Amino acid sequence: MTYCVGMQIDAGLIFMSDTRTNAGVDNISTFRKMYSWETPGERVVTIMAAGNLATTQSVISQLGERDKRPQEDRPSLLRARSMFAIANIIGETLRDTIRGDALSGETAESQFGATFIVGGQIRGLPPRLFLVYPEGNFIEATPDTPFFQIGETKYGRPILVRAYDPQMSFADAAKLLMVSFDSTLKANLTVGLPFDMQIVPVDQCRIGFETRIQADDPYFNEISRSWGNALKQAFRSLPPYDLPL
Amino acid sequence: MTYCVGMQIDAGLIFMSDTRTNAGVDNISTFRKMYSWETPGERVVTIMAAGNLATTQSVISQLGERDKRPQEDRPSLLRARSMFAIANIIGETLRDTIRGDALSGETAESQFGATFIVGGQIRGLPPRLFLVYPEGNFIEATPDTPFFQIGETKYGRPILVRAYDPQMSFADAAKLLMVSFDSTLKANLTVGLPFDMQIVPVDQCRIGFETRIQADDPYFNEISRSWGNALKQAFRSLPPYDLPL
Repeated sequence: MTYCVGMQIDAGLIFMSDTRTNAGVDNISTFRKMYSWETPGERVVTIMAAGNLATTQSVISQLGERDKRPQEDRPSLLRARSMFAIANIIGETLRDTIRGDALSGETAESQFGATFIVGGQIRGLPPRLFLVYPEGNFIEATPDTPFFQIGETKYGRPILVRAYDPQMSFADAAKLLMVSFDSTLKANLTVGLPFDMQIVPVDQCRIGFETRIQADDPYFNEISRSWGNALKQAFRSLPPYDLPL
Repeated sequence: MTYCVGMQIDAGLIFMSDTRTNAGVDNISTFRKMYSWETPGERVVTIMAAGNLATTQSVISQLGERDKRPQEDRPSLLRARSMFAIANIIGETLRDTIRGDALSGETAESQFGATFIVGGQIRGLPPRLFLVYPEGNFIEATPDTPFFQIGETKYGRPILVRAYDPQMSFADAAKLLMVSFDSTLKANLTVGLPFDMQIVPVDQCRIGFETRIQADDPYFNEISRSWGNALKQAFRSLPPYDLPL
């Protein structure tokens, strides 16, 4: 499984992804699920992937190869005119990859499907955030739905829905994502540390901050510990039920 | 979908279930999912069901029919010697029902499967709580795993894990279940009000309290409102992330 969240706030975009992949519960590995394309000051594109690892790695590799050959005639993330065009390129590459594997006639124990979160900004245009489906089509984040989750989305969703605020700082957004990831981690063995986190401040068109949160990260461990107590405290603060018993 | 929780605390057992059934999202109905067998002071048995409605109603009807005919030779919930025997009876009835439907050769759009939570107490024996699988086998709650959820279990799980305490009062347990149901309700359209709640105090071998929480229930609505604020407050109380940006 996987857990990735891409979130849009007034200050820009923030991304977080776990790194665990598994085939069964006794075959787990660490793989990066966050990839970036950057021409600092001109554009930044970040992609996070959930689903079949062979599919997602293939898509990322194909996209990367195109940038290395400037005479390449297939569309490249570093040359596309808009974030919309970039989401389109990723969707087409994803769909073609899945279709290619499926049409090869081979069957696999797992599905070939995958889902991507894509966000970024190109100079002169606003930052945008998309969720790309295995079919190659996609949806865009709006003020009504300002974040996307992929993978194991349920455990970490209630706190996102409740505490999200478009005016929050990046520091608060990072804290919120850590709480959401902590809830998911506690419930699903196939989501695991380390986590990758990336921040893209609005109108800078570059990665503003990037870090890998390891299992011994003191802040994440502090959040994990204190969130349990804070939840208990929140629960105690609710009005008592008047039980006629 | 469905959401039901059965929880064991030192004070006894508490059960809560929603009432929404659906075939698609445009065909929803209200059906009770909580059923009780009671000889007050001698025994009380409560069952909650998730899964195929035809299967669960058939199982409940078969179990009910047996009690109405004292000369019936099939085992009855009101005559079984122990809660273990009762879980066995329910498991066998469930398995036979599913097998009967599956072997009839008919195929259905939905699966025939169902899962039950069974709890109660017989005089002279301790209260017990079981989760019965479609295969007819079952597991029992223990101090390590003192509650069972069936149906849409994920959204409402983090708060149960974090705030459960075996020494909590029934009033606090009811509050906890309402918070857990509220989180689930907010996230999954196929879980819906009204909710049924039942409390079985230890060693009384009877239903101590039973109520139906309607959509206009003032306490539930107060919890739903104030839990959002309490969560935000809990989030704010966490230490800030020191973002070098």
